[in-house]
Amino acid sequence: MDPKVQVPDAVLERFRKITAATAYSGVWRLRPSESAEWFASATWQRCLMHDVWPQTPGRRIVGRARTLRYLPPRPDLLEITRQGADSAEYRAMGRCGPGDVLVIEAHSADPYACAMGNMKTRQLWHNQAEGIVSDAAIRDLDLVAEYGLGVFAKQRSPAGNLPFIEGYEENEPINCGGVLVMPGDVIIADDDGVVVVPAQHAEKVIDWIEEQEAAEAWVTQLIDEERVPPGKYYPISEETKQRFRESQQAREDFTR
Amino acid sequence: MDPKVQVPDAVLERFRKITAATAYSGVWRLRPSESAEWFASATWQRCLMHDVWPQTPGRRIVGRARTLRYLPPRPDLLEITRQGADSAEYRAMGRCGPGDVLVIEAHSADPYACAMGNMKTRQLWHNQAEGIVSDAAIRDLDLVAEYGLGVFAKQRSPAGNLPFIEGYEENEPINCGGVLVMPGDVIIADDDGVVVVPAQHAEKVIDWIEEQEAAEAWVTQLIDEERVPPGKYYPISEETKQRFRESQQAREDFTR
Amino acid sequence: MDPKVQVPDAVLERFRKITAATAYSGVWRLRPSESAEWFASATWQRCLMHDVWPQTPGRRIVGRARTLRYLPPRPDLLEITRQGADSAEYRAMGRCGPGDVLVIEAHSADPYACAMGNMKTRQLWHNQAEGIVSDAAIRDLDLVAEYGLGVFAKQRSPAGNLPFIEGYEENEPINCGGVLVMPGDVIIADDDGVVVVPAQHAEKVIDWIEEQEAAEAWVTQLIDEERVPPGKYYPISEETKQRFRESQQAREDFTR
Amino acid sequence: MDPKVQVPDAVLERFRKITAATAYSGVWRLRPSESAEWFASATWQRCLMHDVWPQTPGRRIVGRARTLRYLPPRPDLLEITRQGADSAEYRAMGRCGPGDVLVIEAHSADPYACAMGNMKTRQLWHNQAEGIVSDAAIRDLDLVAEYGLGVFAKQRSPAGNLPFIEGYEENEPINCGGVLVMPGDVIIADDDGVVVVPAQHAEKVIDWIEEQEAAEAWVTQLIDEERVPPGKYYPISEETKQRFRESQQAREDFTR
Amino acid sequence: MDPKVQVPDAVLERFRKITAATAYSGVWRLRPSESAEWFASATWQRCLMHDVWPQTPGRRIVGRARTLRYLPPRPDLLEITRQGADSAEYRAMGRCGPGDVLVIEAHSADPYACAMGNMKTRQLWHNQAEGIVSDAAIRDLDLVAEYGLGVFAKQRSPAGNLPFIEGYEENEPINCGGVLVMPGDVIIADDDGVVVVPAQHAEKVIDWIEEQEAAEAWVTQLIDEERVPPGKYYPISEETKQRFRESQQAREDFTR
Amino acid sequence: MDPKVQVPDAVLERFRKITAATAYSGVWRLRPSESAEWFASATWQRCLMHDVWPQTPGRRIVGRARTLRYLPPRPDLLEITRQGADSAEYRAMGRCGPGDVLVIEAHSADPYACAMGNMKTRQLWHNQAEGIVSDAAIRDLDLVAEYGLGVFAKQRSPAGNLPFIEGYEENEPINCGGVLVMPGDVIIADDDGVVVVPAQHAEKVIDWIEEQEAAEAWVTQLIDEERVPPGKYYPISEETKQRFRESQQAREDFTR
Repeated sequence: MDPKVQVPDAVLERFRKITAATAYSGVWRLRPSESAEWFASATWQRCLMHDVWPQTPGRRIVGRARTLRYLPPRPDLLEITRQGADSAEYRAMGRCGPGDVLVIEAHSADPYACAMGNMKTRQLWHNQAEGIVSDAAIRDLDLVAEYGLGVFAKQRSPAGNLPFIEGYEENEPINCGGVLVMPGDVIIADDDGVVVVPAQHAEKVIDWIEEQEAAEAWVTQLIDEERVPPGKYYPISEETKQRFRESQQAREDFTR
Repeated sequence: MDPKVQVPDAVLERFRKITAATAYSGVWRLRPSESAEWFASATWQRCLMHDVWPQTPGRRIVGRARTLRYLPPRPDLLEITRQGADSAEYRAMGRCGPGDVLVIEAHSADPYACAMGNMKTRQLWHNQAEGIVSDAAIRDLDLVAEYGLGVFAKQRSPAGNLPFIEGYEENEPINCGGVLVMPGDVIIADDDGVVVVPAQHAEKVIDWIEEQEAAEAWVTQLIDEERVPPGKYYPISEETKQRFRESQQAREDFTR
Repeated sequence: MDPKVQVPDAVLERFRKITAATAYSGVWRLRPSESAEWFASATWQRCLMHDVWPQTPGRRIVGRARTLRYLPPRPDLLEITRQGADSAEYRAMGRCGPGDVLVIEAHSADPYACAMGNMKTRQLWHNQAEGIVSDAAIRDLDLVAEYGLGVFAKQRSPAGNLPFIEGYEENEPINCGGVLVMPGDVIIADDDGVVVVPAQHAEKVIDWIEEQEAAEAWVTQLIDEERVPPGKYYPISEETKQRFRESQQAREDFTR
Repeated sequence: MDPKVQVPDAVLERFRKITAATAYSGVWRLRPSESAEWFASATWQRCLMHDVWPQTPGRRIVGRARTLRYLPPRPDLLEITRQGADSAEYRAMGRCGPGDVLVIEAHSADPYACAMGNMKTRQLWHNQAEGIVSDAAIRDLDLVAEYGLGVFAKQRSPAGNLPFIEGYEENEPINCGGVLVMPGDVIIADDDGVVVVPAQHAEKVIDWIEEQEAAEAWVTQLIDEERVPPGKYYPISEETKQRFRESQQAREDFTR
Repeated sequence: MDPKVQVPDAVLERFRKITAATAYSGVWRLRPSESAEWFASATWQRCLMHDVWPQTPGRRIVGRARTLRYLPPRPDLLEITRQGADSAEYRAMGRCGPGDVLVIEAHSADPYACAMGNMKTRQLWHNQAEGIVSDAAIRDLDLVAEYGLGVFAKQRSPAGNLPFIEGYEENEPINCGGVLVMPGDVIIADDDGVVVVPAQHAEKVIDWIEEQEAAEAWVTQLIDEERVPPGKYYPISEETKQRFRESQQAREDFTR
Repeated sequence: MDPKVQVPDAVLERFRKITAATAYSGVWRLRPSESAEWFASATWQRCLMHDVWPQTPGRRIVGRARTLRYLPPRPDLLEITRQGADSAEYRAMGRCGPGDVLVIEAHSADPYACAMGNMKTRQLWHNQAEGIVSDAAIRDLDLVAEYGLGVFAKQRSPAGNLPFIEGYEENEPINCGGVLVMPGDVIIADDDGVVVVPAQHAEKVIDWIEEQEAAEAWVTQLIDEERVPPGKYYPISEETKQRFRESQQAREDFTR
């Protein structure tokens, strides 16, 4: 499945300036279409991965998702999957260049199973990829981190992928950490967690976030000056946001 | 993916006479091919589902697997999946007739999400299917059980599938309960658990089981007669099994 | 906190004819008010208790919630709580008569802690209460069940409440199984799970359910007659529901 | 380690008339010796097994503990353990006769590992043992239950003991369900749970219980007659118990 | 509920010199009153929070507890709780000044729910509070840590409080991490964990600790000098402590 | 049980140059003997501890296992275990010198129970032991780490061993983290995890590892030079390894 929308680097750059927490808020507020009966339709709010943790603390990653799905191995499955350099896991990594993140659904019954270690991920280093997000464990982290990759995974482990999981297909929609990841979606991950932004809404989300961040900074200043409980201005109501917009306008008018 | 092997009803009938525990032993002993380096290859032993429990106690099911996979929902995913009677979940149930079991990978982040309840599964009743095996919860169990279906699932719940999971694709290999299920594999499930027998080895497995069960009955008789600890004859060694075969031969010669 | 709305017995009687699964759907579709920014407001959908399981299988209970909250014990807390017959737990049970359910937030760190056993719950039998819903374990279940109470709890256990939990306050809002329970809310619980219906919306919910159940029965008949995948008519669209309403009207006109 | 005290059948018979919940209370109140600094010494209160559940519901067992411990297997361990009829697991079962319970510490990393199934436990049936208490899973439960054994275990499973656990030593102190079990301790288990009574205190415990049960019956009658909250008389204070004793004495005097 | 005892800053200062581990031992040894039947009364030993972890490693906090309790949200609950600057969460933070710790019972069903992030906690920075202890997740930790607050919480997360939890009441007894926290109790937390010291016993506890620490230092010296297993002198018996006291007395006599 | 094989320091030194991940692979590929029926025998593959985590990050330890087992305490157990300097825990630490690791099976029902803190482990510092591996929590970690010990444990905690666990026996086979540990086995642990190498195979394992590491370095160079997906040469086939050996031989011939 080819991404419907190829998120441009310029949009990724704007996401690099914000946190995963802010990205979460930006996606959370996306309103579903009104066409369906509201309670029978899906929302965009399921965007935060569960049980996928930062393994390279202090490292934030932003990039387009390239997906890979594993299955429990069996001799007859390996006859399908073992295609050397043309195996699904290498094809998936082959799609990853700068600004791309490999996202893995391992769905492993054993939490110590590792999708990858330093040997396989060398391909991501060759390609200057952004990082790895995986619901499985990560092996050889000290070496993988040297490749400059940001790594988010279930945990660390010295185990391999066999006899637990085997790379099966790539570039299809997956479930990673309980979140739908479509090829091309924007991943933004930091020490707070991993958030998925649907590709077709990425620009709308970052537009809203940039205004919201400015509004929060403005409100914070009010709170500090007045020494009031933040609850006076936060959460930011439509009315307060309007006041903020007017103040921005006034400043712009003034500085023009 | 079409099943490579269509397991005939006659083989299913033979499986109906044994327990899931015995099926487990039969699959467990399948030796992987010698061609690969032994430690780098997969085995057949990962055949027991984890966290999938009997919901219709006392009911044993045996059948060919028809597979269905869910993903976390999102408005853009529903545009793909919502095809009325032609949706993946109805197509999957359309493949299920007598001797067939619907096997579901929901991979739900919420354990209370139900793939199905009494409305959808009515199709399985129309088709006289054998049962349902699901890593999600089951809704309306009292009604579903009236359809004569054997149900194995994570738990009971009154919730629906939205906003947790959405049927996405069918008739492909899945991971249910940590076990690979290929379309056409044999499912044998009872109050002890759910076991998957690879279709292409089903006959070999039941051949071994039938001899093993006879040998265990013969050994049990020895143990009872001699009033010895079962450890004297159990686990059954190759030597003891040879003695059993000779005794069988002798009996056959005698009764001929 | 006194219940804002006292749900009348007549409404409870209507709930007795439906399942927890249907009640869940009825609450789930309640739309929050439009006044707030949609993403910053709460919904009514958090209505299904987690980790509270049927202990008297086959028994459905329907009733008004009477609430009780426990805290971890300490000698100075017991000086407050130990008031003999006037202790919070006995006052809470004193509020329970026919059509009332005692709902307990124990929030116990130890899953084997029991809020109550057969000695204390005798008061509920005296008062002919409907049952108990508790996030703690239940002790002496065989005896408690003889009182005719429906019991939903975390698990069974032979332990007491000390040194784990101690009854502290009653008739206030609580968190049971991750769900808000206001005094007076309607509890409907069966083998599928425990659902909380906000008191002020109970009548609206049962109105919708009764029509929905009739529509589902009508749709099921269509599915059976046409032998089509349920997906043709299910989930029931607004359009199908309109057809159902017309058919009902036609039947009423005819039978008049 | 030989039991210091051999609990006589007559004491077991008295335990057969009470519940695990009452046994728990009886052990819970045993006071540790005053000689040690009170906070640096152990108590008798850790007597309730965790994560060991009734598998033969409705069946209560009472008996002397015969202990067995498993270890994770390895080829060099099997050279020690595999002694046919003289293996630890068979020696342990050889110690079990009427009024004896096999208690197993498997400490398995895999919850589906079974210590035993129908083949091995046949020895317990030969010996007319009371039952099995195990922190591992149980295999072939339908067959094992036919042997008349009461079974308490982690869960059901169709798996075997290999490659998860291997019987290693018997008749030594073990940790089953987080509780110390010394050979000879009294096990009392029913649908509420599994309680361990130290052998040397078994008689003292049952003495207290029998009086407590009579006192509770007497108090229940008061509560019923006066229609008061049980909190008026429960928990039973020393003062109330004194009143009870006097009433018993009076009745005895009267009936003499 | 106003604190019965206001622990003075001087006592807090003494606690700042010890570890949470030592505080745990000091509370653990508090003997309950002798008045109640010993097994029916509570102890002071339940003082260590479970599943509340250091989020600002290396940071120790000591302070008086100011409490806050959350409930699952619902539209009708928000009508009660949403009072702007006068909401429970802001009132609770308003009570926190230097030497005070905000302690939160969120009791969240979702482990990713955050009670607070950088916007709300700005009030604690204004007030120069000591830190936050919460059984929920923490959002925007990098920013919150810049406020100089020590943070102990379930985990990190980018999510908000809605739709999971909502601040409901403050300054009342709560259950945080399975431990009773009364307003005014002393919190001492470091990388080992979070310990609660009942306010009315804080001075008695620190008195004992200071002597115990001196005794341990004295014993450690003995162990080092004699190169013996610590078991010779540890745990410190009453007799050894007496020897220590005499040696202290001797030293004081000498240096006088 | 005395170690069958005393692994010499020279072999330990070779293990110090590799990672736990590589040690895992080296043990994993050990083939069990062919004598037994393959499916009824044990393998060497169960060598990775579960739920035992690095507490001194960045610290790798390598050493011979000295074992210690705990049991749940009870007053009568303490009469056996409390032998001052001759208690099992001190005897176990007495066996630990340079190149030795204390390995603990606590099997604690409470995850906050600590086997040891800074007082007891001072003996390991006296003896210049390598470190501690424990399935229980560790207390006073900041102090213990100062002793230069590498620590791998379930978690940190300020609690003591009582009333949860009590040291019972030492120098016997144990189950730590789901892995069999025989006295004398080689422990290799780093931030990836804890791996157990059977003493009698330690030399064979390190021989294989050293060649494998050289082969991986050689293959990595190929991958880097050819800029191909690692799958072209990895996992390393027998054929590729043969090419590697020839290239090594060629180099040796050349440099001779």
